[in-house]
Amino acid sequence: MSTPFEWSRLVEFYETDLAGISHFSNFYRWMEAAEHAFLRERGIALHEGGIGWPRVNAHADFKKPVKFGDLIRVRVSIAEIRTRSVRYAFEFLVNESDEIHATGEMISVCVHLETMKAIEIPAEIRQCLAGQAV
Amino acid sequence: MSTPFEWSRLVEFYETDLAGISHFSNFYRWMEAAEHAFLRERGIALHEGGIGWPRVNAHADFKKPVKFGDLIRVRVSIAEIRTRSVRYAFEFLVNESDEIHATGEMISVCVHLETMKAIEIPAEIRQCLAGQAV
Amino acid sequence: MSTPFEWSRLVEFYETDLAGISHFSNFYRWMEAAEHAFLRERGIALHEGGIGWPRVNAHADFKKPVKFGDLIRVRVSIAEIRTRSVRYAFEFLVNESDEIHATGEMISVCVHLETMKAIEIPAEIRQCLAGQAV
Amino acid sequence: MSTPFEWSRLVEFYETDLAGISHFSNFYRWMEAAEHAFLRERGIALHEGGIGWPRVNAHADFKKPVKFGDLIRVRVSIAEIRTRSVRYAFEFLVNESDEIHATGEMISVCVHLETMKAIEIPAEIRQCLAGQAV
Repeated sequence: MSTPFEWSRLVEFYETDLAGISHFSNFYRWMEAAEHAFLRERGIALHEGGIGWPRVNAHADFKKPVKFGDLIRVRVSIAEIRTRSVRYAFEFLVNESDEIHATGEMISVCVHLETMKAIEIPAEIRQCLAGQAV
Repeated sequence: MSTPFEWSRLVEFYETDLAGISHFSNFYRWMEAAEHAFLRERGIALHEGGIGWPRVNAHADFKKPVKFGDLIRVRVSIAEIRTRSVRYAFEFLVNESDEIHATGEMISVCVHLETMKAIEIPAEIRQCLAGQAV
Repeated sequence: MSTPFEWSRLVEFYETDLAGISHFSNFYRWMEAAEHAFLRERGIALHEGGIGWPRVNAHADFKKPVKFGDLIRVRVSIAEIRTRSVRYAFEFLVNESDEIHATGEMISVCVHLETMKAIEIPAEIRQCLAGQAV
Repeated sequence: MSTPFEWSRLVEFYETDLAGISHFSNFYRWMEAAEHAFLRERGIALHEGGIGWPRVNAHADFKKPVKFGDLIRVRVSIAEIRTRSVRYAFEFLVNESDEIHATGEMISVCVHLETMKAIEIPAEIRQCLAGQAV
């Protein structure tokens, strides 16, 4: 497992619900935002070169609520690089604390954007994902 | 102005915010859903035939809050059919009541989906919009 | 496992993304909408009587894309009623087809809304959940 | 009119629609996020002290599309401070460019959160809004 990358931003008012906390559907959106920030940081262009990364599944466990105005921090690490897909692991933290508020997993498949068919992850992208110099 | 068409559905939990009411951004989404239901009812296919209807503006006035579990009803009428655009007027009602909870306006422009350039509304679509038999 | 309950509505334009399909985060929102419709159908009031049902986890597997204008149908069944929580299973279907486009699971915990502390599911609600006459 | 304050972040994938651009409903969410960042910068706590700022209306004009991965920049200025409300003006820019992609307006009313009744903006908050030292 590689060193975690961290993405963060403030939790917005439109992300809360009437229970007074952030709605659980936002954790999946934050996973995607964190995944994309991670890919950019590794030099992997998104929705260019005819390649996309749709999800085949996503899971999250919610341990503590996240609130309006919190700084939500999402740690991304690659749990596994497979032939045609990547399995990511996520940890959600809040503000300065080390406490895990939620965890998640997501599998993204490498596809040709036109056909949406799964393809082998190209060697160059595989190297970037693994954090190796290309 | 033509007779109002009405679209409705329950307000969902994920549409509320921590003030305990439906977040104002949803009114714009409901306008779109109501506009699309209206177009379908008039026999106008959406995102087919290479034609799309992006908005050039949208406005809403909020008079009374809308709550989780309310039946939100959106009345759509055409305020004006222009050469290349349609101006819609919306009224938002709740449950059985005749009280207006919000009003809105939106201008949608007829475009070629590939170029996203505005075009004259084709005669056949214009007739459907006007509620005339084609 | 009880008989599936089905909730459905059209997939809206605002639920699509630039890959041309419904964004995966919507499946979690549809699970919630279907869960709430199921609870209403069983006579269980939502966010009344001081009881709420936050999720402790949610999972989805995506098999086939869902598109703008599709009728998304969500089958809800109770996989397990525990002391303080309910585990739901979901199947996502589209239009007239019997093909499963996605599946999901979600665990909702019974809490006091004021303290957000988990409590034993009250006997009357347990009976409603189980589909028994109260 | 005061000097514009600028809020920005990347446009996320979940904010796009099948037309390949950011869905128009996001502009209203970005206005809210920018308004809140502006209030924080002026030292005005949000949803504390029993005061909230619901909108009574919001308007946006869309001139050019905003795309996935763009840095959306929202310039906030106060158009008018009234007795019980604030009228904001917004300009939406993208990346390094000075071109205005959209403009917006929003009126937020000062209310007691418990009663949701409009109140006079307290003198201290009025000074903060006006950018004056308190």
